[in-house]
Amino acid sequence: MKHPGVREMLTATVCVALLGCLQAQELHGHVSIILLGATGDLARKYLWQGLFQLYLDEAGKGHSFRFHGTALTSTEQGQEIIAKVLESLSCPSDTAPARCAELRTWFQQLSEYRRLKTPEDYLALSRDIEARVQHEGRREAGRIFYFSVPPFAYADIARNINSSCRPGQGAWLRVVFEKPFGRDHQSAQQLATELGSFFREEEMYRVDHYLGKQVVAQILPFRDQNRKALDGLWNRHHVERVEVVMKETVDAEGRTSFYEEYGVIRDVLQNHLTEILTLVAMELPRNVSSPEAVLQHKLQAFQALRGLQKSSAVLGQYQAYSQQVRRELQKPDSVHSLTPTFAGILVHIDNLRWEGVPFILVSGKALDERVSYVRLLLKNQAYCAQSEKHWAAERSQCLPRQIVFYIGHGELGSPAVLVSRNLFRPSLPSASWREVEDRPGLRLFGRPLSDFYAYSPVREQDAYSILMSRIFHHRKDSFVTTENLLASWVFWTPLLESLAHEVPRLYPGGAENGPVLDFEFGDNRLSFSQPPPEQVVPGPGSAPTPSDFQVLTAQYRHSPLISAWPEELIARLAGDIEATAVRAVQRFGKFHLALSGGSSPVALFQQLATGHYGFPWAHTHLWLVDERCVPLWDPESNFQGLQAHLLQHVRVPHYNVHPMPVQRHQRLCAEEDRGAQAYAEEISALVTNSSFDLVLLGMGTDGHTASLFPQSPAGLDGEQLVVLTESPSRPFQRMSLSLPLINRARKVAVLVMGRMKREIAMLVSRVGHEPKKWPISGVLPDSGQLVWYMDYEAFLG
Amino acid sequence: MKHPGVREMLTATVCVALLGCLQAQELHGHVSIILLGATGDLARKYLWQGLFQLYLDEAGKGHSFRFHGTALTSTEQGQEIIAKVLESLSCPSDTAPARCAELRTWFQQLSEYRRLKTPEDYLALSRDIEARVQHEGRREAGRIFYFSVPPFAYADIARNINSSCRPGQGAWLRVVFEKPFGRDHQSAQQLATELGSFFREEEMYRVDHYLGKQVVAQILPFRDQNRKALDGLWNRHHVERVEVVMKETVDAEGRTSFYEEYGVIRDVLQNHLTEILTLVAMELPRNVSSPEAVLQHKLQAFQALRGLQKSSAVLGQYQAYSQQVRRELQKPDSVHSLTPTFAGILVHIDNLRWEGVPFILVSGKALDERVSYVRLLLKNQAYCAQSEKHWAAERSQCLPRQIVFYIGHGELGSPAVLVSRNLFRPSLPSASWREVEDRPGLRLFGRPLSDFYAYSPVREQDAYSILMSRIFHHRKDSFVTTENLLASWVFWTPLLESLAHEVPRLYPGGAENGPVLDFEFGDNRLSFSQPPPEQVVPGPGSAPTPSDFQVLTAQYRHSPLISAWPEELIARLAGDIEATAVRAVQRFGKFHLALSGGSSPVALFQQLATGHYGFPWAHTHLWLVDERCVPLWDPESNFQGLQAHLLQHVRVPHYNVHPMPVQRHQRLCAEEDRGAQAYAEEISALVTNSSFDLVLLGMGTDGHTASLFPQSPAGLDGEQLVVLTESPSRPFQRMSLSLPLINRARKVAVLVMGRMKREIAMLVSRVGHEPKKWPISGVLPDSGQLVWYMDYEAFLG
Repeated sequence: MKHPGVREMLTATVCVALLGCLQAQELHGHVSIILLGATGDLARKYLWQGLFQLYLDEAGKGHSFRFHGTALTSTEQGQEIIAKVLESLSCPSDTAPARCAELRTWFQQLSEYRRLKTPEDYLALSRDIEARVQHEGRREAGRIFYFSVPPFAYADIARNINSSCRPGQGAWLRVVFEKPFGRDHQSAQQLATELGSFFREEEMYRVDHYLGKQVVAQILPFRDQNRKALDGLWNRHHVERVEVVMKETVDAEGRTSFYEEYGVIRDVLQNHLTEILTLVAMELPRNVSSPEAVLQHKLQAFQALRGLQKSSAVLGQYQAYSQQVRRELQKPDSVHSLTPTFAGILVHIDNLRWEGVPFILVSGKALDERVSYVRLLLKNQAYCAQSEKHWAAERSQCLPRQIVFYIGHGELGSPAVLVSRNLFRPSLPSASWREVEDRPGLRLFGRPLSDFYAYSPVREQDAYSILMSRIFHHRKDSFVTTENLLASWVFWTPLLESLAHEVPRLYPGGAENGPVLDFEFGDNRLSFSQPPPEQVVPGPGSAPTPSDFQVLTAQYRHSPLISAWPEELIARLAGDIEATAVRAVQRFGKFHLALSGGSSPVALFQQLATGHYGFPWAHTHLWLVDERCVPLWDPESNFQGLQAHLLQHVRVPHYNVHPMPVQRHQRLCAEEDRGAQAYAEEISALVTNSSFDLVLLGMGTDGHTASLFPQSPAGLDGEQLVVLTESPSRPFQRMSLSLPLINRARKVAVLVMGRMKREIAMLVSRVGHEPKKWPISGVLPDSGQLVWYMDYEAFLG
Repeated sequence: MKHPGVREMLTATVCVALLGCLQAQELHGHVSIILLGATGDLARKYLWQGLFQLYLDEAGKGHSFRFHGTALTSTEQGQEIIAKVLESLSCPSDTAPARCAELRTWFQQLSEYRRLKTPEDYLALSRDIEARVQHEGRREAGRIFYFSVPPFAYADIARNINSSCRPGQGAWLRVVFEKPFGRDHQSAQQLATELGSFFREEEMYRVDHYLGKQVVAQILPFRDQNRKALDGLWNRHHVERVEVVMKETVDAEGRTSFYEEYGVIRDVLQNHLTEILTLVAMELPRNVSSPEAVLQHKLQAFQALRGLQKSSAVLGQYQAYSQQVRRELQKPDSVHSLTPTFAGILVHIDNLRWEGVPFILVSGKALDERVSYVRLLLKNQAYCAQSEKHWAAERSQCLPRQIVFYIGHGELGSPAVLVSRNLFRPSLPSASWREVEDRPGLRLFGRPLSDFYAYSPVREQDAYSILMSRIFHHRKDSFVTTENLLASWVFWTPLLESLAHEVPRLYPGGAENGPVLDFEFGDNRLSFSQPPPEQVVPGPGSAPTPSDFQVLTAQYRHSPLISAWPEELIARLAGDIEATAVRAVQRFGKFHLALSGGSSPVALFQQLATGHYGFPWAHTHLWLVDERCVPLWDPESNFQGLQAHLLQHVRVPHYNVHPMPVQRHQRLCAEEDRGAQAYAEEISALVTNSSFDLVLLGMGTDGHTASLFPQSPAGLDGEQLVVLTESPSRPFQRMSLSLPLINRARKVAVLVMGRMKREIAMLVSRVGHEPKKWPISGVLPDSGQLVWYMDYEAFLG
């Protein structure tokens, strides 16, 4: 490592020998690559090999290189470890052994180990680099710092690099990080802010090594090169589902201290599977080789993801896990971990391309096979006029049509891109991808391999080798930007929080799992297909048993009360509303329904939107009980909730929807704009006797209902049908139906849900008619019917 | 046939022997069944057998019967034919031959042949019946007239029955008709009106013999008895598609004179397949044994059918057909028939239960197999966590889930109800249905028979036997009411008309068809999967070849003109609108689009609704260029077209949609309601400078545009932004954007399509700025851009 002249000659030789290039004399700058944590696991297994590959690929193209392995280990010990690692580096399979030994020697001569601990060490490194550059008579091109160290060490190292080891003007700095990048949005944000105080965004490269896998890296180029064939297919009209899957056979034994902190969602789904999902889902930029365009489109894909709910997930845990945790973390026998080792997640993307297409994300440990893939199953929209024995794989449109990015392992055993033969012959770069030979008897995704056009890489490449090259070539689209990272955490964090106390289903592990982890997806929820197996180890929680779910009928304030668990209660209320609607339409030809905002009705809206096929929506008029004085498009607006959860799913004619005119003449609820009067006139004109067929109310913890609050000067009595009121909480201004108008309804339903309502429910059960104090107590239809719907939590506490 | 005493004794004997009933002495009335056309084909093959079965089923239950076969044939000849038919009647398979002979003899003694031609003949028949009733000492229960005669004979017979052969007070009359019931809505209506002048609706029974097939008759009972299991499945969330199929191997040879008049749609789809479709699709009445409820729900199903378009069908004709026609109808060699012998139709049902679920109707002659079935394929909404070799048929939700009403023939060879084992074990009446034994090697619908719970009738029964019983028991729900018949023709007639000159694809016939008839369904259109094969016989029409489809750009009235075939033109316009929208949203955050009504934009709306994923609908404001002074919910309203073809399919927020306020204070376009001013104010408030980003106009054959007609006193100039105008055609009153407002737009697109526009397009190309004469000539944006989109028919004629 002491004769730069020799090295230069070597570089030129490598160039000619390896690459046949002719212009080694055209000298570029010098590149230093500093591998931090060079003696660690990841470095020994992958990173040094990746650097070697980078050297093989790039050394002949004009740059000079030097590879600095660093760690806290003493120089001597470190050198020893590194020497051993360098000895074992392998060459591409088509390199002769002697030639490989030669190449390895050259690489060894460009590599060194050094201890990097104190600010002085960093300064020394920087000076060494500068001296070398000068000695070589080159300019410095740039420095790559690869952080293969635990996150807690980031800050120190980053500070040292920033203060003592930045390259001079005109040379670039690139810092490379390995996950984990936090364990939720807050911690990821913190880490990002910290790193952001040392590095500029364009200097940072966050590695998700799945983005370096050959097939994953091929997704966008494939979409680009097959644009013509895919243009009409890559959308909700043609895609039936997308599966993004990473199954492992290994379990977490030996790694439980890490795994307990993370679990399968943080370990695999939040990063690897989400990255792949966005590559499939994003709008394809015109120029897929523009990192900026790719990253921007990816970010847009994140923004279109529909928020996850508890019901979007199924969780499992292999049976031996808790025991492994107890053993490895020395916990008592009573400890049962809730950490999921298996997860299935249903993701929906709310844009016009993907609306309604289920994206299924699955990962787990201790499963029956090791395999990763993304599979697009296309809808079968064909009818074949002959009986199926006549169907031919290459042309029958009645056989499954699939596009699979087979990332690796599995029965095929190698990465591949598969396209059903009845779809189209895909175009892949012929220099690097070749057709897979048929293997009779091998079936993939329900069909023999021969039913697919199947392409594998000519030369299998390690993900880290690919990523090293991408870092070197400044391909930021192969990495996770801060924006994208935080977008991913914004998406995942609420789910992780809502699942924190969820008891995962236990599974035996391996082939014995049977169908115990199979799951099904409905509109917006996942559930296991099979009832839970007998649990060998009892879970720490217990759900209410089916017999708990019944509807109780009683009296409340001298009116009928219906009480049940939330789901049953909502189902009952929705059924009652439908029956009322059907009767009204039969009698009067239309149904006037006034709805409250807030969170309780959301579940009701969803129930009405999905389960009630006989609902006469075309003849239903929708009115608002109250509204906040915000523009209708404000997320706080009651109307927005109605639109998002109901109107988008059913067919109410535009002119039957009556939002409250809180905004007129570009002002909100100005008295002089007479919005309340206008709404009252609209009601009088369309609703016979201003008597709604059904008014749905809620009850606040202060006893308010509609937007009629205690001590309200308006709306509790008098002639006004619609009033402007003041709320004690933001937004203060409201518009509301008045009590007299509410009481003209043929039917009033009051929906009260949740433990928070317990106290007021108890209180209101005892008070008389005191609307000034408790407006809800003034709800008493003149001649209509009043029914209370309270869930057990509100009613029984 | 001359000893009534013997007959009564016989009746009692039959009762005891056949049915074990004990109360033959409880005498009901006398029933006369008059089979008109008793010597014809249908009668000989099916109807006498059906009457015999009715006799076997009912004779012991208290009624007395007499069967009058009638025709125009002379008495002697007729008696001879009938005697032969009666000799060959068969008994249920479990009847011993000697017993069968005995039963047959009894039936023969109750049957007679008589000529029925003149009014006197009818009168004589009536008197004979009355005499017999008196002689038996019974009252008359009723008379059934079964019309097994060609439709042209109906009127005469009906008149005679009505005037001379009605039973007396207290007895019922039932008249039974066989199809065809007309060949379109008009002829069916005529026939119905004619029959209606002789019979009351409840007296008429129109036979669709498919409704008598055991499996078809089981559809509603099956849905009823399995309500619990089906409740959650029988809807758009779970059903992937419904196939209603009747395939035949025979061709039309020997029947071409009939077939040329009807073709496959009138012969099979309009009646058999449509009836089955409604049984599957209709809402299930609470009481499925109430004929009224069933018929009413069936009618509602008809009303929810989405109108068919030319593109809803694919048509085929077996290659030998035209030659058969020429031979049988003695036509010259130059004659090529356009009659379809194969049809695939895509039906959509626009209600909340079925919206989006494709119902595929298929029938054809000369196909590879004879089979009829209705198949519901359920959506696969499962993910199975193990690789498929572990899946088990009875529980894996990843294997296909299907419910099939297998009407008959096919590889199974018998009627059956099939339910995939991974769905549920169906409940069927165990007395009449039994499980089918497995037949290893037999695959149905992609799965081995053993994957299904499969039930067949214990005793196979002929459709006519079942229908005779239903007539006797007054089960009108097994027949086609006038309302339902007309509803069916309302549905089918527009399609038949639009297909009248369509050239069917030729197919070789039988197993050689290959995939030539396979077809695919998109949103609302069907198309053959394969390009057309070389036609052995050239078709009588020729479509434009692909090279004809190009877009031409030129100048028209000094502005850019884009011209193409309709489909290309619409695609281009939609693309241009999307690009304009994207740019507007990028620049201003919103896009203001003003749309015209009429028929040309419908195709545009559909294109925008289905093909443009990047369209920024959430930021688009939709305005109307003009509106008819009708309520917004009137089908004539421009807004309705916009709602049906665009708004229902995309997500434009409610408050971004701006219908014209043609109705205020329950009046239409009253000057004093100032609707035009209100719309102008709304525009001024929301659209910067009242300058729309894009205005889409049309052009009338009189040169009008928007609702600005020649010589209009308002809207052609001046200050008003929105005006009330008069149209020369109904509805006369209109509201319209004014020319000055239109000309403030950033971009104006004028869409002109169809041969009808040729003349005005030519004229307008030559005139100057003469808006009074030709309002369209006044379209000239102040600073915006004007582009003409004309299809070749309008531009080139």
